[in-house]
Amino acid sequence: MKKIAIIGSTGSIGTQTLDVVQQHPEQFFVEGLAAGANVDLFVQQVNQFRPKKASIATKELADQVRPLLPAEIELSYGEEGLIEVAAGTEADTVVTAIVGSAGLPATLAAISEGKTIALANKETLVTAGHLVTALAKEKGVSILPVDSEHSAIFQCLNGEHMEDVAGITLTASGGSFRDYSREQLTNVTVEDALKHPNWSMGAKVTIDSATMVNKGLEVIEAHWLFGLEFEQIGVLLHPESIVHSFVEYRDGSIIAQLGTPDMRVPIQYALSYPHRWNSAAQRLSLAEAGKLQFREMDFERFPCLRLAFECGKIGGTAPTVFNAANEVAVARFLNREISFLKIEYLIETVLSRHEALADPSLEVIRDVDLWARAVAESL
Amino acid sequence: MKKIAIIGSTGSIGTQTLDVVQQHPEQFFVEGLAAGANVDLFVQQVNQFRPKKASIATKELADQVRPLLPAEIELSYGEEGLIEVAAGTEADTVVTAIVGSAGLPATLAAISEGKTIALANKETLVTAGHLVTALAKEKGVSILPVDSEHSAIFQCLNGEHMEDVAGITLTASGGSFRDYSREQLTNVTVEDALKHPNWSMGAKVTIDSATMVNKGLEVIEAHWLFGLEFEQIGVLLHPESIVHSFVEYRDGSIIAQLGTPDMRVPIQYALSYPHRWNSAAQRLSLAEAGKLQFREMDFERFPCLRLAFECGKIGGTAPTVFNAANEVAVARFLNREISFLKIEYLIETVLSRHEALADPSLEVIRDVDLWARAVAESL
Repeated sequence: MKKIAIIGSTGSIGTQTLDVVQQHPEQFFVEGLAAGANVDLFVQQVNQFRPKKASIATKELADQVRPLLPAEIELSYGEEGLIEVAAGTEADTVVTAIVGSAGLPATLAAISEGKTIALANKETLVTAGHLVTALAKEKGVSILPVDSEHSAIFQCLNGEHMEDVAGITLTASGGSFRDYSREQLTNVTVEDALKHPNWSMGAKVTIDSATMVNKGLEVIEAHWLFGLEFEQIGVLLHPESIVHSFVEYRDGSIIAQLGTPDMRVPIQYALSYPHRWNSAAQRLSLAEAGKLQFREMDFERFPCLRLAFECGKIGGTAPTVFNAANEVAVARFLNREISFLKIEYLIETVLSRHEALADPSLEVIRDVDLWARAVAESL
Repeated sequence: MKKIAIIGSTGSIGTQTLDVVQQHPEQFFVEGLAAGANVDLFVQQVNQFRPKKASIATKELADQVRPLLPAEIELSYGEEGLIEVAAGTEADTVVTAIVGSAGLPATLAAISEGKTIALANKETLVTAGHLVTALAKEKGVSILPVDSEHSAIFQCLNGEHMEDVAGITLTASGGSFRDYSREQLTNVTVEDALKHPNWSMGAKVTIDSATMVNKGLEVIEAHWLFGLEFEQIGVLLHPESIVHSFVEYRDGSIIAQLGTPDMRVPIQYALSYPHRWNSAAQRLSLAEAGKLQFREMDFERFPCLRLAFECGKIGGTAPTVFNAANEVAVARFLNREISFLKIEYLIETVLSRHEALADPSLEVIRDVDLWARAVAESL
């Protein structure tokens, strides 16, 4: 039986993780659940899964839900609550399903306690990959990817030797505006952007798919997860999202992972690894799919991906600025303050005002993150 | 350094194996080479690679080539010569690249001597899979596939657990007559049949591709190699021959192996396993390929594949009859004695006259093989 804690339990990845738990009740004990502000779902989850510890965004919300939860459950809140759930239980695996850079301190705390990380919070590696991977190495902790692309790569590396890897390729559906020209992007709405062709995901990730920021964050994440140079990481447009990503080996062989777009499969794999369990996911029929298409990535059409590669290669605080500026830009777009194309403008402008600092500490990362957010808000 | 012997060194797989040896001279010592009747190439190979032992089809040919070979090389001939090269050297790996059922005794002899088998001779498993796999198990010998499809499956099983496998799918290009109707097949010529759309292979295998007998033999081979039920083995039409085959796991994940059609890659993998080496094979660009297509297999269009599944499920001597009847039928077609569609007629007719014997000995297999050939010659 696996003891798990989930930070970000009410989000898209969190709820699907609990789906997996429900499908395999004999495999799991839920030690901890941490959520943001989705009070109703949090109360329901805590009553259903009975974790030992739970946490919610603020003291106010904690006071509000306390009477609705079993008395024996330890309830906390805020950043300390996140850390308590991530690091303060007997969980052997922590699913970091929280979105954004808020997941970093809790992830580091969990690694310090020797817990395996099922990583869905890509900002953790994007902003502090050097700190996270160094600590994981020191503590002998495995970081298992939950993202479908990184899970695909991880599966395709099974039983292989890293020195035999020539490179990896992350596939990209192209997002909601795959077939739009740059001109057509001028007047797109929030509603248009939220219609992802293949995957059902949270709002932030869906916008990041449309700008290709998501793929850029994944490229930086892959660099840290698999210890690869940016020159070894490619991105390929694949509209059907059936080939989830692939590894090319030095003998010319390509090993690819394919499936229907169902996040429960990679989530489950991170929890069942090195084994596999049955899954409720729909089976892929390649005969029914009929064909799979692939196109070179157009870096002029998707400048955010170019920026991500540039930030990745610069390293240090550059990816933090990229990520923070994007978080603000996406929030402002979803809030209808700025247009879709302004997202990339904000990112590029904030980056142009930043001189990257090498090997930053957590404190420096936090300062730079705040600075980038302030600038992105002001533009 | 790996010590290898090759039986069938002048054929398509044999020469490509020696290509791999030439590309990695530091990795190999060639202990033995056995050929059929291609005297010129045999003499060249023996002089170039200087094996300790060599063998050719007949005493006559041996007498003919003896003066042309270095004096220190032990030369033998015939079935005993094959066995001498397969089992009588210090080779740790024997590449069984000979076509047809002639490879069986030599393969069994090599396994008895504890040698790893790089198996390209599919008839070995088709006719005597129960004997070969039992002996390999007893001797602790690995049988590594060389066929591109089985190598693909083998690669996709890397680091996985067999109990997690839901099934495997072998891809099929459809061969030279992929887009022909049954009616259009009536008058096709030998020359038409030898034009395989994707792979450069020997004549027998190319005809077997067009009839789909090759895929049928591969299905039976896969049953033995991977210990799978026939219900777990599927065949899918994939005209581009880029996805070489794939494994579906019980969590719904599919792991596929892809590459350009170059037999040197799977040959090399059988020799480099569990590592990979650089290869001269052309790299696959999925963006250049543009699209990959898949279609359900049509068992009415390709009745030989249906017959192969039926024979596989019946087991015992049924696959031996299938294989022997096909060998004669293909030889007669290549000899312009019978039409293309008569190949399947011969196989089906010979099978209809045979009552399969369960768990046959080598002697029974040989008798049934001879009987089936005689009947196929007489029709």
